[in-house]
Amino acid sequence: MWSWGAGYPRPHLNSQLSTLTQNNMIELLDTTLRDGAQAEGISFSVADKVGIFNLLDDFGVDLIEGGDPSSNPKDCEFFQKMRSDKLVAFSRVRHKDMRASDDEGLKKLLEADTKTVCVFGKASSSQVKDVLNASLEQNLDMISETVAYLKANGKRVLFDAEHFFDGFKEDAGYAMSALLSAADAGADTLVLCDTKGGASLNDIVTLTKKAVAAFPKTQIGVHIHNDTGTAVASTISAVKAGATHVQGTFLGFGERCGNANLSTIIGNLVMKEGCPSSVKIEEMTTVANRIAEISNIVLDSSTPYVGANAFSHKAGMHSDAVLKVPESFEHIAPETVGNKERILLSEFAGRSAVAKKLENLFPSLDKSHPKTKEILDMVKLLEMKGYQFEGADGSFKMLAGRITGSYLPSFELVHYCIKATNPDGMNTAEVSIRVGDTVTTVKQNGNGPVNALDKALRSALKKHFPQINNVALVDYKVRIVDSSDATGAVVRVLITSTDKKDTWTTIGVSTDIIKASWDALCDSFEWKLSHK
Amino acid sequence: MWSWGAGYPRPHLNSQLSTLTQNNMIELLDTTLRDGAQAEGISFSVADKVGIFNLLDDFGVDLIEGGDPSSNPKDCEFFQKMRSDKLVAFSRVRHKDMRASDDEGLKKLLEADTKTVCVFGKASSSQVKDVLNASLEQNLDMISETVAYLKANGKRVLFDAEHFFDGFKEDAGYAMSALLSAADAGADTLVLCDTKGGASLNDIVTLTKKAVAAFPKTQIGVHIHNDTGTAVASTISAVKAGATHVQGTFLGFGERCGNANLSTIIGNLVMKEGCPSSVKIEEMTTVANRIAEISNIVLDSSTPYVGANAFSHKAGMHSDAVLKVPESFEHIAPETVGNKERILLSEFAGRSAVAKKLENLFPSLDKSHPKTKEILDMVKLLEMKGYQFEGADGSFKMLAGRITGSYLPSFELVHYCIKATNPDGMNTAEVSIRVGDTVTTVKQNGNGPVNALDKALRSALKKHFPQINNVALVDYKVRIVDSSDATGAVVRVLITSTDKKDTWTTIGVSTDIIKASWDALCDSFEWKLSHK
Repeated sequence: MWSWGAGYPRPHLNSQLSTLTQNNMIELLDTTLRDGAQAEGISFSVADKVGIFNLLDDFGVDLIEGGDPSSNPKDCEFFQKMRSDKLVAFSRVRHKDMRASDDEGLKKLLEADTKTVCVFGKASSSQVKDVLNASLEQNLDMISETVAYLKANGKRVLFDAEHFFDGFKEDAGYAMSALLSAADAGADTLVLCDTKGGASLNDIVTLTKKAVAAFPKTQIGVHIHNDTGTAVASTISAVKAGATHVQGTFLGFGERCGNANLSTIIGNLVMKEGCPSSVKIEEMTTVANRIAEISNIVLDSSTPYVGANAFSHKAGMHSDAVLKVPESFEHIAPETVGNKERILLSEFAGRSAVAKKLENLFPSLDKSHPKTKEILDMVKLLEMKGYQFEGADGSFKMLAGRITGSYLPSFELVHYCIKATNPDGMNTAEVSIRVGDTVTTVKQNGNGPVNALDKALRSALKKHFPQINNVALVDYKVRIVDSSDATGAVVRVLITSTDKKDTWTTIGVSTDIIKASWDALCDSFEWKLSHK
Repeated sequence: MWSWGAGYPRPHLNSQLSTLTQNNMIELLDTTLRDGAQAEGISFSVADKVGIFNLLDDFGVDLIEGGDPSSNPKDCEFFQKMRSDKLVAFSRVRHKDMRASDDEGLKKLLEADTKTVCVFGKASSSQVKDVLNASLEQNLDMISETVAYLKANGKRVLFDAEHFFDGFKEDAGYAMSALLSAADAGADTLVLCDTKGGASLNDIVTLTKKAVAAFPKTQIGVHIHNDTGTAVASTISAVKAGATHVQGTFLGFGERCGNANLSTIIGNLVMKEGCPSSVKIEEMTTVANRIAEISNIVLDSSTPYVGANAFSHKAGMHSDAVLKVPESFEHIAPETVGNKERILLSEFAGRSAVAKKLENLFPSLDKSHPKTKEILDMVKLLEMKGYQFEGADGSFKMLAGRITGSYLPSFELVHYCIKATNPDGMNTAEVSIRVGDTVTTVKQNGNGPVNALDKALRSALKKHFPQINNVALVDYKVRIVDSSDATGAVVRVLITSTDKKDTWTTIGVSTDIIKASWDALCDSFEWKLSHK
């Protein structure tokens, strides 16, 4: 066994960090729920938003932007449900022809009842003229009146200066006037936005320094898009230039080429720049994977720090070197961010993780127990086939129960038969199960084949196990594991169930979506029955 | 129609570029075929390598690394086949206990018969001691003798100084000695490598400047990995610090978190820094997509410059602004890199977005046309039901065709019937369609119910429409729209199809996954048939 440590540089206070940075933590604002939702294919339900909020909150992100309460009923509902000092509501500044106190958007913003609000206004004179069709003075009034109004209502106010970097290059005085209007009206934080994502790193550094110098009493932040692939570097460089508030999305998604990736920024600030931080960095990989799961996206395996391949080694020479001297091809110890090295030979850490995961259920399984290795080997085999136990604790525990022999199945499949026809839209499932010596067969219709299967199985089980009456399925997710085989692809089904007391998730994987759903359904009911 | 132009900054010579950069082009080396092949899931055949080489060559990349001829027979065969002044063969320096002229690896390197070779040696004293198990002097000899031997054989020699940045921080003198050994032996280019990808941008800039100052007569290059998400920014900054040779992979793939993304670097150098370059930048998006296709990966849609979403707009406010003033949310004109603007349709979109999207297909539909409103209303209604047209251009165009009456269905469903049973795992689909007056019925088995349905429909259609032989399904995605109804939830199916010339995506939505898949399948084939 080698030990992490000596070979790696320890986090240290970089001498180039500004004084502010040395004394204070960098404030992190995540906008996955607002700007991230602009990414193609992302669509959050209210429950998704609550789930992501809680993950970011627990992880230690300082501020979490929840959306624009005036933009749609879903965001409105989210703000009604959610109460937290970290929650930030977002809006444009007042309409050009309206007083702040009459503006419907700002009314909704206040109704969201958050401690902090973020409002955006234009810091580019051409944008004011060509897009807003307002006069330059009008725009400055909109900014200052909005900020003053929100301050008068007791809010902490972040001002997002839209198009600041481009605006400065076309008309420096006007861009600075926009900041000044917000600052004079009492804005707590001036956020310099590279809205189009095309500003160069040099410009971002130079102009951040200018803003820091011009507003020594106001916090300066940055909000950068990734259209030139440099959003993370620009954000880190802006922090070195004196910004102490950073906006991004945890996985980097957002419209066009995405927002600055907040998890990469956090990795760099904590692991490379030695910034003090209250985030639970050792949970970063888990949080990233859970957010990806809720967002129904596949986390890019090459994502820095948190991607599945961030510490994987394929080259013969490299993996040999890594086994000899881990730090030879790894820039940090993967465990520090909750990730792991992936080389097939190093299952040692894996066994202790399995033992750790099962310590409550099977306290006798330590990492040297042969059953522990057997479970780990089975997990690896199944993960090769498309299973993923990270999000499916229920199935993982059933698997361990089967291997340790501590669990006996409550029922067995005799057969099922699904019939789905159209245009009449009929879906019928016949399920036949054996409990002890009794075979029970039930036929049910559903609004889809899986729904029919679920109803038939549930109905057959109820005759033997009344306790499953309490079990409700609360979530059903389908993911194509490798979609390049099109309709012949392997499908992963995740089912989350609850009995009001516990909640558990089970998994099924197959090229056949009905079979995958069946496996996940069976595990779900078996989980309940094995805990009676 | 608006015209690109005035609103965008023209490429210009940035005053901060070094003198070298102002006079010479930056030399671009692509290592997709060598370092890129280290990425998980990438495996090139010789034909793949030839295809990618030709794409990069035509595009105008200066040097193309082909692999290590001694590492495997495939690379060896590639070098036998390929003749080009741009081709670079790669190898380690000589073995520590062997003369350069006796070293098998270097023999194979020379046999590859390329004009330019690249050899790597260690520039970190700890690596020499702990991984190479050689003395510090031995390592310097290995470098200088190898370079001298290759120069004596008439090669242009690039020296990759492995672990240079980390090596410099642990033992600056030794790292510089490694460079000096190569330079004194006649190396033409000294390439500073951030092998672990963990060096900070500041260190990369500082140390590149040192190397440029120390070796004024030798070209300095950089080779940077992306483990902190800053490889592109570090590479650009190194160029500004005096490096004139840049290494990367065209799509950024490589082991762990990938290599510096060369297409992003090219976009930034040409479009942002005004570097002169002989690349055909207007073909960059096409080249990127072709390389992705040969590599059998899906090009990340958020890739800067070349990704499908790099210039797409979803938010109502943003897409309105873009339609009014394109440069308001686009940092460059998409056409300059061969990409295009995409307005994503969503419930936030307006009539002008619909008209814009259909301008090629239905030029008579302007935003005040009543059919435009009818289409938009239908989009909104269907999106309430779970449809999402932003990713399903094919179905959107079919919908518009149905509403405008410009499209008549090629076939009609008489009925389908799916039977799925277990434990025998049988999946059978019977599909019956009407074409004109003929009813065709086909029965097929599949490895899942949807696969069976796909096969049966395709087989029934082929009898009438041989042109669908060209249609291949390349992607099948399933999403639960609101999963809280569990197995009764609404399911959204997206199918992407291609006929090698065009690629289109269609959608189906239902509580019944088979019905949703059927609808998406039908639209996919109808799209092809309506374009005959």
